Amino acid sequence: MSLPPQRLLHHFAFDPHSRMVRLALGEKRMAFEESHIKYWEPSDALIRLNPSGLLPVLSETYANGVSLNICETRAIVEHLEEAEQNIRLWPLDPQERAEARRLTGWFERKFDYEVNALLLHEKMEKRLMGLGAPNLANLRAGREALRDHLSYFESLLEARNWLSGRHISYADFALASHLSVIDYFDEMNWERYKHLKTWYMVVKSRPAFRPLLADILPGVAASAHYTELDF
Amino acid sequence: MSLPPQRLLHHFAFDPHSRMVRLALGEKRMAFEESHIKYWEPSDALIRLNPSGLLPVLSETYANGVSLNICETRAIVEHLEEAEQNIRLWPLDPQERAEARRLTGWFERKFDYEVNALLLHEKMEKRLMGLGAPNLANLRAGREALRDHLSYFESLLEARNWLSGRHISYADFALASHLSVIDYFDEMNWERYKHLKTWYMVVKSRPAFRPLLADILPGVAASAHYTELDF
Repeated sequence: MSLPPQRLLHHFAFDPHSRMVRLALGEKRMAFEESHIKYWEPSDALIRLNPSGLLPVLSETYANGVSLNICETRAIVEHLEEAEQNIRLWPLDPQERAEARRLTGWFERKFDYEVNALLLHEKMEKRLMGLGAPNLANLRAGREALRDHLSYFESLLEARNWLSGRHISYADFALASHLSVIDYFDEMNWERYKHLKTWYMVVKSRPAFRPLLADILPGVAASAHYTELDF
Repeated sequence: MSLPPQRLLHHFAFDPHSRMVRLALGEKRMAFEESHIKYWEPSDALIRLNPSGLLPVLSETYANGVSLNICETRAIVEHLEEAEQNIRLWPLDPQERAEARRLTGWFERKFDYEVNALLLHEKMEKRLMGLGAPNLANLRAGREALRDHLSYFESLLEARNWLSGRHISYADFALASHLSVIDYFDEMNWERYKHLKTWYMVVKSRPAFRPLLADILPGVAASAHYTELDF
């Protein structure tokens, strides 16, 4: 497996978990093709690709004919880290590495259910699924939960260079992916979170971030500052 | 870090995620002390240990004074695998390893929300929290979701020795942990799932499983076959 494999990422541009893997691939300078998946439409093809129906899925085909199908961020980032060790996105220090994995998991076990399931569901998924206008009580609850999470991240970034400590890690890309989608829908009040804002300006300036800033959701204009590096 | 560290596992005996780490530590023959946490009681101590409030948390103290605090299964199992490579619980083959990580994640992103949040919440957590009798509609929905999950696992185990393929892995311990708690509450209809039953008899016979079979929840007797290796 010395030649790099051909990579195909099955994803949806505004799925935060998919965005995290696009950032990781970009940071590791791994080229990939894209297959755009409408995960909200019932599809046998998606279930064959990943029985959970969740995105993203990374398919790799090696020159020797071996192919790999790797489902969801947890398996993908560990695989990328094992496959490409020149650019490491898990910190080498064991405590900082555990902290980065804890925070990466935060988005799968907490943020997804406490924020995305309300805020993104109401603002994005309902539109994608043709389910009508947002429910205002849910929107309010999602915004409130978001504020709690942002205050927590702000408190971490007040004391650290990067989310998990002294080194950039997958935790930063997990946070940036999630906030970038919320920012597209103009739900980020950056002025309230100084450290978070400074951190985001830095992450947003990285070359791997550029493709995310070019994403367009038909029928929904991005917030005015979505693409601005200095906002 | 040549001497093994002193390990303290903060956990709750009937939290499936905690059980998974107890099994992993047992399989890797790593000794550990235990601290029993009532995660459903609001507690600053738990939040200081892990800001998400989720279990388990593994604390390690090394002879040189270094100490590590590792939160939740994702970070813990990757750490254990990095720390102890003689007994590997991620398969060496990349596709089988990705499959094991996919299935391990299944319990955090799907099973927890589709089954535990209904079935275990109604049968266990409400009792622990003093919230009264189970809601029957939720119980029914949880049992229905459980059947779908079990059919899926049955289909995998029909074609494989172990859940993720040819080798035992963390995915087996994730599944066994979750089913063992449900089995304690007598919600497993083993006769409907032959391959799953055979697989569970094998996993249940492993020495690492013994402590789980000795767990007792005050006021709730285990199902008649909970401790039986041949059921």
